[in-house]
Amino acid sequence: MDFNINRLVLLDALTKVSRAVSLKSPLPILTGIKFDLLEDGLVLTASDSDISIQTTINEGIIINQTGSVVLSSKYILEIIRKIDGDTVHIQVVDGTLTRITSESSLFDLNGSKSFDFPRIDLNKNGKHFSMKSYDFKKIIEKTLFATSEQETRPVLTGVNFKVDQHQLVCIATDSYRLAQVSMPIEDDIQFNIVIPKKSLNQIIHIIEKDEMIDLYVSDRKVLFVIGQYLVLTRLIDGTYPNTSRLVEDQGSYTMSINSSALLGAISRASLLSDEQSNIVKLTMSPDENILSSYSQEIGSVEENLTKAFYKGEPMTISFSAKYLADAIRSIGTETIQLRFTEKMRPFQITGLDVNDNIQVVLPVRTY
Amino acid sequence: MDFNINRLVLLDALTKVSRAVSLKSPLPILTGIKFDLLEDGLVLTASDSDISIQTTINEGIIINQTGSVVLSSKYILEIIRKIDGDTVHIQVVDGTLTRITSESSLFDLNGSKSFDFPRIDLNKNGKHFSMKSYDFKKIIEKTLFATSEQETRPVLTGVNFKVDQHQLVCIATDSYRLAQVSMPIEDDIQFNIVIPKKSLNQIIHIIEKDEMIDLYVSDRKVLFVIGQYLVLTRLIDGTYPNTSRLVEDQGSYTMSINSSALLGAISRASLLSDEQSNIVKLTMSPDENILSSYSQEIGSVEENLTKAFYKGEPMTISFSAKYLADAIRSIGTETIQLRFTEKMRPFQITGLDVNDNIQVVLPVRTY
Repeated sequence: MDFNINRLVLLDALTKVSRAVSLKSPLPILTGIKFDLLEDGLVLTASDSDISIQTTINEGIIINQTGSVVLSSKYILEIIRKIDGDTVHIQVVDGTLTRITSESSLFDLNGSKSFDFPRIDLNKNGKHFSMKSYDFKKIIEKTLFATSEQETRPVLTGVNFKVDQHQLVCIATDSYRLAQVSMPIEDDIQFNIVIPKKSLNQIIHIIEKDEMIDLYVSDRKVLFVIGQYLVLTRLIDGTYPNTSRLVEDQGSYTMSINSSALLGAISRASLLSDEQSNIVKLTMSPDENILSSYSQEIGSVEENLTKAFYKGEPMTISFSAKYLADAIRSIGTETIQLRFTEKMRPFQITGLDVNDNIQVVLPVRTY
Repeated sequence: MDFNINRLVLLDALTKVSRAVSLKSPLPILTGIKFDLLEDGLVLTASDSDISIQTTINEGIIINQTGSVVLSSKYILEIIRKIDGDTVHIQVVDGTLTRITSESSLFDLNGSKSFDFPRIDLNKNGKHFSMKSYDFKKIIEKTLFATSEQETRPVLTGVNFKVDQHQLVCIATDSYRLAQVSMPIEDDIQFNIVIPKKSLNQIIHIIEKDEMIDLYVSDRKVLFVIGQYLVLTRLIDGTYPNTSRLVEDQGSYTMSINSSALLGAISRASLLSDEQSNIVKLTMSPDENILSSYSQEIGSVEENLTKAFYKGEPMTISFSAKYLADAIRSIGTETIQLRFTEKMRPFQITGLDVNDNIQVVLPVRTY
């Protein structure tokens, strides 16, 4: 293996591919990136048990001799980041010992045999559909935060993607709050899968420009084709809970309020609350709306929501300040609407008169 | 106690005074800031066992009723940071319960009696001298990093300030490297003290503009007067080691080199070295100068220092890459000079033909 390559082109590819590397992998070879230098380009591959990323570089490269090697992700990335010069020369000099030179620097890095790297099936099989990369990114950003941190119900640690009747519905819930985003799609297909949170987090970092991406959905995995990148992720086994009751229940009492005014009030009202539970109380009536919290040890705070319009019977409801703030940020509109049924029932947060992003927060009992 | 105050004026003062607060103080009252509202201004005081900071606000304040209270540093700072509005109203409403209001927010914060706050003697006693605040800041920034992290020799955890014959000499060493900065001063006094690293770190954050500051040096403490701020710090007991041998020893072999070229080479050469010891090897001769490191497991790196000029016998010396990088950054000149005597002797780093900042690094034995 012997090639010269534009340093920044290689750095960008290594940075993205290395997202699939688990530095704590039980299989040492998986802490590396596989370099396959073919006659028409350099193929870089990294993988852990959940996600695999592969890209091909065929511009900015001069191929002197084909070959392959696996190099430590950590060291090759740091070397290419810190080495001087526009062009880097990379060459296997002895077995798997790989020499990286540029300007006045010479690195000899111990590699591993590419033969020992697991084979990964990146074939384009399964149900195919396409969508805009920025739409995909937006969906993830508006749902991912609501996935569960607990491994007790694995299915809740991912985002549920359901496609039926030209409609994509994405749901995340940790069973204390829920985020649901819907979007029409062109392709006429059906599936119902759960993609791990970690994989989605890596994928949105590979998306850099607005382009069409292709998805190939199989029973146990999905392949994403994003420009020059192939990303394969496993799916989470198990049936995602039916959450339709939570989003259908409209609630008859409504409050509309400026999002940033409410975010400011939440941030102040939660200052004195217990950092763990972060519970605040909302007291509503057509005359006055107060967001408050109380701690016997520290003190109390009352925020008068002068910019809120409430329609309904007077009521008081307690909930996690963080969950409401997450929901408001996910919606991202200037004004938001909250819909309540009663004190101990979940309430919904949406934009004004729109339902493509529905957030649900469960109240907590206070005494 | 009852006053209205400009929010940003109070926030700035609280931010600076709270630097003396230890959130883990064994004395709970010391996690607070003392508010003393006198007829001519608001005095804010905070203290831990090492450092005390006090300031007086007499602009941007309307005093309605004098009084005093101690408020939790953490909460009052967060409240004043997050509350809306230009002006804040602060009032003791019941015993030590303190009400903070602004726009639509109302906070009731439990306080403590100011009587329980320890008395701190901030009188201007001791040997007095003045210097420019930016000179003081520069000295600290150029020495502080070389103090010891180990508590085994407490005197090395501070910076030694020696004044004699109109000359201030500041020294820090962890016994593996040393930083010494000298500066002429006008006042005709003598002292030899060691100021704790932590206090110096707080003091440079209080300095915001170039002005004269006053120092009052006593046996066990120093008082700094920085604009509206009084800062009192304890000194570290014990005799600081005599390090003059290290800085007098000039060395007969010299290398001069562009600082940023050497910093770049150090950063790359240390990439493959053990992160803990971070040892690199410098091989010098009039023909070629190589900075290298080797790890049996990972690989090796050689940096050719093409911009170095070496005068002396061929020699090889090994040392901590981090210590040399720290020294070069402390000197901060475009070109630096290294002076060597022999393989196992300390070497000096200075600017070209200047001695107001002398850095010393001890080599390590390698095999």
